[in-house]
Amino acid sequence: MLVLVANLGSTSFKYRLFDMTDERCLARGSVERIGDAESKCKATIGDWSDERTMSIPDHGVAVEACLAQLTDPEHGVIRDASEVAAIGFKAVHGGRLSGVFRIDDNVLEAMAEMNAAAPAHNPPYIAAMKAMQSRFDLPLVAAFETDFHQTIPKARKEYAIPRKFADEFHIRKWGFHGASHRYIATRSAEMLGRDDARVISCHLGGSSSLTAIHNGESVMTTMGMTPQTGLPQNNRVGDFDPFALPLIMERTGKTLDETLSLLASQGGLLGLSNRSGDIRDLREAAEAGDANCQLALDVFVEEIRRHLGGMMVALGGLDAIVFTAGIGENDAPIREAVCANLEEFGIVVDSAANQALQGEASFHDDVSRVQLWVIPTNEEIVVARQTVSVLQS
Amino acid sequence: MLVLVANLGSTSFKYRLFDMTDERCLARGSVERIGDAESKCKATIGDWSDERTMSIPDHGVAVEACLAQLTDPEHGVIRDASEVAAIGFKAVHGGRLSGVFRIDDNVLEAMAEMNAAAPAHNPPYIAAMKAMQSRFDLPLVAAFETDFHQTIPKARKEYAIPRKFADEFHIRKWGFHGASHRYIATRSAEMLGRDDARVISCHLGGSSSLTAIHNGESVMTTMGMTPQTGLPQNNRVGDFDPFALPLIMERTGKTLDETLSLLASQGGLLGLSNRSGDIRDLREAAEAGDANCQLALDVFVEEIRRHLGGMMVALGGLDAIVFTAGIGENDAPIREAVCANLEEFGIVVDSAANQALQGEASFHDDVSRVQLWVIPTNEEIVVARQTVSVLQS
Repeated sequence: MLVLVANLGSTSFKYRLFDMTDERCLARGSVERIGDAESKCKATIGDWSDERTMSIPDHGVAVEACLAQLTDPEHGVIRDASEVAAIGFKAVHGGRLSGVFRIDDNVLEAMAEMNAAAPAHNPPYIAAMKAMQSRFDLPLVAAFETDFHQTIPKARKEYAIPRKFADEFHIRKWGFHGASHRYIATRSAEMLGRDDARVISCHLGGSSSLTAIHNGESVMTTMGMTPQTGLPQNNRVGDFDPFALPLIMERTGKTLDETLSLLASQGGLLGLSNRSGDIRDLREAAEAGDANCQLALDVFVEEIRRHLGGMMVALGGLDAIVFTAGIGENDAPIREAVCANLEEFGIVVDSAANQALQGEASFHDDVSRVQLWVIPTNEEIVVARQTVSVLQS
Repeated sequence: MLVLVANLGSTSFKYRLFDMTDERCLARGSVERIGDAESKCKATIGDWSDERTMSIPDHGVAVEACLAQLTDPEHGVIRDASEVAAIGFKAVHGGRLSGVFRIDDNVLEAMAEMNAAAPAHNPPYIAAMKAMQSRFDLPLVAAFETDFHQTIPKARKEYAIPRKFADEFHIRKWGFHGASHRYIATRSAEMLGRDDARVISCHLGGSSSLTAIHNGESVMTTMGMTPQTGLPQNNRVGDFDPFALPLIMERTGKTLDETLSLLASQGGLLGLSNRSGDIRDLREAAEAGDANCQLALDVFVEEIRRHLGGMMVALGGLDAIVFTAGIGENDAPIREAVCANLEEFGIVVDSAANQALQGEASFHDDVSRVQLWVIPTNEEIVVARQTVSVLQS
């Protein structure tokens, strides 16, 4: 069975094509600048790379253009578009719907109900899905980012708000990055050789979250109702005090929507540093003496550690910490700083191993009771597996 | 030197009178229903209790009425009001001013700048202080609740917001309950017999916060810019996702101010349980089978544990946990639940000692590496000491 896994942006479409008989990735590609007069349509199939420039008005046409490359008579990997069994999506916020679903009017309606809570994600996703629905008979499957977190106990999922807000408006700590944390849960169990481990998965990248895993299930996560909460992100605020909003509005003259947009685009590491949301830029500037850039790095590490500690207590002990995603996989100093000074809790880094680390490997010292790992994430294969299971159910 | 320590409510005034030569409390009293036609004015001096009913239009007149009782010819404890050297206040939010100050126009102005962030506290405090200023020559001293937290490292104090919001609008994690946590810092050092301990002070009451203490100084706390953040309170929300506000406003038709007021009066344990903000009511109802009341208790404990873990990591280890304030001092089941299942971190409760505990005592098991204590707080004596130090400086 062939499954196309799609990653949607408001003006972009990225994909991988998997053969699910052996989970092999047959092809990958992207369409950028959808809606512009000149969109770029790229594909890589084995050694063959192809780039085409054309007008692609919407995500429906984008998928057609991708399928044209995949069925290229000379280099293509499939003969006919009908060989693709389904397109699977990571979808962000389904509110009352958390899980994996064939996309239909009910799914799109549940997503639309969350537009006010996920204004940057849900409206463009809905538009893209509708464009594809109108053009193909192909089954479309939405794997919500909140799915993996359905196992979190109620006492760690509810805000201290009137029950009506939770029950009727679906305001609770949903959590996100579900596909990535699910991959880490599965893969770390293999690495540790046991299914009952207590693991903290640190997905650190352009967008970051931590998840506490026990018996392979999510039992706590850092993001709440929206993906704006939890750790500071590259340009998004993370945990913040709602009762400070009136003061910002009074001083800046901005509306609530403008203030929230500003916190979601000019906050995070960018806001703290007043320079960049990229850890590499921040480190370079900090080493050259920029105090705000050093502050941004320090706040990022402190916030990871704060949430890490909360999860250690929730788990009642810890067997492994796993780092993944762009920063988690590639930034040895951040990993070292997150794990520093925790010897009393049985966490001891092998600094040389951490520095030298490439790909999938551990970096704990021999005396460390807690194992420390880097495991490169693979969200796409999780979505592909979930898509297959929906088709088969 | 005699110091009157005052606790202000919008329509109430409570006080204790201390002789600071030996820190003895000479008298205590209160005025309730200030502004009503019939205000109640109570005083207790040794064995003598007095209650008078009269019209008390503002806090200035309330202080006069209290001084009349304190100078009562037969039972009074002072001959003349001029024997009182100063009135010290716990003040909530001074924004750019954090510390202990003689109240003047600059202090009142700094408090007024924070009205939008502390609408329930600052405006009535300012009005009360002005009423007293206009009636007495007595020095008035404000000990801000944020004072003890000035030692928190910058990386644990800053939100990931544009620098301008921190630098110009003073939006950072100020922390509150400073007088109580300072008392615990001092007293726990005496109990542990060392000044360098790593202690987590759990102030649990109608309003609750945790503070991590190292070398007698605050290094982390749960409340942020406003006292609405951190743990769920009796009827206030605690940590919440600001990006969920537009969804609540869309569904309820309420304004931002109305929504925030609602979260600050109908949230917390009251909101979760849909019944009561009082732990005792919740436990009784939970035992009778009310699932929402059990949920409220569980969320309260989980949130305390989440913050406790973050502080354990920040401290790099732990020597003691101290419980204080109404719930912390009197609720053995809450203490037991907070400390449960943490044996791997060296935290072991002596359940019988915990159950039997009265007043100031420890309740850790012999094998516990971390000491567990109840220490009744005494915020008033801290404010009295700070008032003296300001008068002498």
